[in-house]
Amino acid sequence: MNSYGQMMVKKSVRDTLRLDQVDLATLDPAGRPIGPRTKKEAADDLAVTGDELEALQEALYAEDSRAVLLVLQGMDTSGKGGVVRHVMGLVNPQGVRIASFKKPTAAELRHHYLWRIRKVLPDKGHIGAFDRSHYEDVLVPKVERLINAAELRKRYKEINAFEQELADSGITLVKCFLHISPEVQKERLLARLGDPKKNWKYNPADIDVRSKWSKYQDAYTQALRNCRDTPWYAVPADRKWYRNWAISRLLLETLREMNPAFPQPAFDLEAEKARLVNDDPLR
Amino acid sequence: MNSYGQMMVKKSVRDTLRLDQVDLATLDPAGRPIGPRTKKEAADDLAVTGDELEALQEALYAEDSRAVLLVLQGMDTSGKGGVVRHVMGLVNPQGVRIASFKKPTAAELRHHYLWRIRKVLPDKGHIGAFDRSHYEDVLVPKVERLINAAELRKRYKEINAFEQELADSGITLVKCFLHISPEVQKERLLARLGDPKKNWKYNPADIDVRSKWSKYQDAYTQALRNCRDTPWYAVPADRKWYRNWAISRLLLETLREMNPAFPQPAFDLEAEKARLVNDDPLR
Repeated sequence: MNSYGQMMVKKSVRDTLRLDQVDLATLDPAGRPIGPRTKKEAADDLAVTGDELEALQEALYAEDSRAVLLVLQGMDTSGKGGVVRHVMGLVNPQGVRIASFKKPTAAELRHHYLWRIRKVLPDKGHIGAFDRSHYEDVLVPKVERLINAAELRKRYKEINAFEQELADSGITLVKCFLHISPEVQKERLLARLGDPKKNWKYNPADIDVRSKWSKYQDAYTQALRNCRDTPWYAVPADRKWYRNWAISRLLLETLREMNPAFPQPAFDLEAEKARLVNDDPLR
Repeated sequence: MNSYGQMMVKKSVRDTLRLDQVDLATLDPAGRPIGPRTKKEAADDLAVTGDELEALQEALYAEDSRAVLLVLQGMDTSGKGGVVRHVMGLVNPQGVRIASFKKPTAAELRHHYLWRIRKVLPDKGHIGAFDRSHYEDVLVPKVERLINAAELRKRYKEINAFEQELADSGITLVKCFLHISPEVQKERLLARLGDPKKNWKYNPADIDVRSKWSKYQDAYTQALRNCRDTPWYAVPADRKWYRNWAISRLLLETLREMNPAFPQPAFDLEAEKARLVNDDPLR
């Protein structure tokens, strides 16, 4: 407990942010329901969390039997990429696997929607992060009425089963809904338009999606309600520093609970030391 | 030119470390042929380099048409993993692809040795790093006499052709030989045996490989001499801080030369701003 932020946290971040009843309208995207009150406190805490995360990650990697998968969902500009950069950037890239899911390609559409997801699941020992995920396949098709209600229900069921399968295979999911307000989204889209180095992140179709804000909130609500055999965390995302802090702590609490252990050597340590000390390959 | 280390560098690191005549015996693994003289200078310089690398990486990612691939080869403990952590860790994990190649599996051995390499080449816009690579397939088989001289020559040719194919497809290779002394390797292996958190990195077979030090140096010499249509850089690796500094600079010089550019928007900026300002999805 080395920093103010960490001392403040009595209740866990997971318990605080876990979505039990999914009612997005009651959640404040600018809220700070637990933890640091200021950007400075959050930054200090993030550095400490980073050190512990990296140590836990190394043990997870050495153990080589389980994995973590951070699932990031949220409206455009909610900060999925920012979390990858600032939270996943805290740990050793050797043990990290990032995948992002854009609009499905023609090849992807010829397969089951979980096909492209399964291809990039994190290997054992790794921490994966999905920038968007299989949830896109119950959001866009619902809003755009590409599938009917029965197919949607089928997908919710499939997703619950898929996530249970991941758990059974040793992959712990940390599912985060990055919750922003339409006002903050407008600011961030304008920032993308105003900076030549950010123009590439902007897509005119983003406004088409934005214009269906309520429909997307409804699609999220249904998806989150129907697919929470594995819990969802709602992360207030209007403040970037709070969002990054919260997700770093969700990962930390998850890894602490997993408690990965460095494996015992399968060889005789003293015998190996003796071999090495007596060895001189150039003699 | 913000730091002492960068001010010192007149000649490029690439020109200094490029292997023209491959004579490993004349290269000092503890050398500092260019750049910082102390760990402190190197650390200051690495931070500045990291900022510039991250900016160039973002442009490379936005441009989405070319890629970089760092190939790391060297004896056990030469620091391939350390480079991944400390150099690749400088940039945004979203644009990074790490692959490590262990002893080929039975499935891999049923394919051409380049099969497993091709599967994990970096996508456009990314910086990849290979911890070991296709060069293992001209090192181990030569030392262990698993293939004959004609097959070895064939592989050298294939590797040159493969690397040319990568260049033609927009992947710029940065091939680094991490050069350590057997004395430093002994220290590092003993450190792995002495620390319970490092035991997992130790493999008794490492000493079998170490006992063939001269044969491996010879195999490296032949591989580096015969496969340098795409240049090799010899990185003195007895000092970890120098090794990390040097490779960060090799990457930086490479990316500066590639000079990636943020793409011009394919839409009307002002029209999009107007759409956005007039838009209120909740109205």
